[in-house]
Amino acid sequence: MAVHERTPVQQRTFSVLVENRFVVLCHVVGLFSARGFNIDSLAVGETEDSTMSRITLVTRGDRKTLEQIKKQLNKLIDVIKVQDLSEEDFIDMELMLLKLTNTPDLDAFLEPILKRYHVHLVDANDKVRTVACIENRENTKTLFEIFKKKGIVEMSQSGSVALSKGPVKD
Amino acid sequence: MAVHERTPVQQRTFSVLVENRFVVLCHVVGLFSARGFNIDSLAVGETEDSTMSRITLVTRGDRKTLEQIKKQLNKLIDVIKVQDLSEEDFIDMELMLLKLTNTPDLDAFLEPILKRYHVHLVDANDKVRTVACIENRENTKTLFEIFKKKGIVEMSQSGSVALSKGPVKD
Repeated sequence: MAVHERTPVQQRTFSVLVENRFVVLCHVVGLFSARGFNIDSLAVGETEDSTMSRITLVTRGDRKTLEQIKKQLNKLIDVIKVQDLSEEDFIDMELMLLKLTNTPDLDAFLEPILKRYHVHLVDANDKVRTVACIENRENTKTLFEIFKKKGIVEMSQSGSVALSKGPVKD
Repeated sequence: MAVHERTPVQQRTFSVLVENRFVVLCHVVGLFSARGFNIDSLAVGETEDSTMSRITLVTRGDRKTLEQIKKQLNKLIDVIKVQDLSEEDFIDMELMLLKLTNTPDLDAFLEPILKRYHVHLVDANDKVRTVACIENRENTKTLFEIFKKKGIVEMSQSGSVALSKGPVKD
């Protein structure tokens, strides 16, 4: 009986360059769903070339699973290139919009946060304040916990958007 | 013979609250693809309630098409609520990561942009600078055109993330 070696579960960020059609998203999500691969985060948007889109995909698995994911993504029609950003230095940022109830102490509460993090006050009225946060995954989670204590009315978020730090086009 | 009244094409932003499963994305994209509805932008992420996700969807069509889109979205399994944000005041923001070749004049070029817009320098080395922009759709387009003239090495973007300006939970 063969003994299957189990390697530790790791989180990986893939940057997937695709033909500029949203239907590719469906193929990617369908693949992950059918194979039982995990999606932690997904973002899709335009690139510097208007004929292509870039899907940033954060996933998890042991080494064998991650290899399978990369291989299967490469096989998909419309997929131009799959890059495992975790193999090199990369930058990842998330966008989080938060609506907070306006209380008398809210502005004083926000002040140090606006100074310390990439957080902007984007709307303010008598009843609510809306802030936009642009931070990496870890800081976004920290900010969410900080704002949660204050009471979040509503929240909307993007997935991680990532780029390698390297000097050349991937 | 019936005369079909054609109304002008409008852009609409829908906020779609769904069960927290990426497979819903596939249902949404599949619906748009099958019916020939247009997707201008799509973003998905967590909400203040960890059992739900929010899909922000920017689409276009005449009045009849937009009504159909709303109706068909509401019919989808896993869709909890569909809100047409364009019916009220709302905030929309996009995240754009840009890698630029480091030239002797780059920092001087960036300075006024960092002051005027929600743009942050998030990585810098000898060869490249990476900036993160968080602006609405219009300003994001303006920034892209500004940076394009300077030469973009690489770019990764999220779709629009939106919330109503209203004081209550949608």
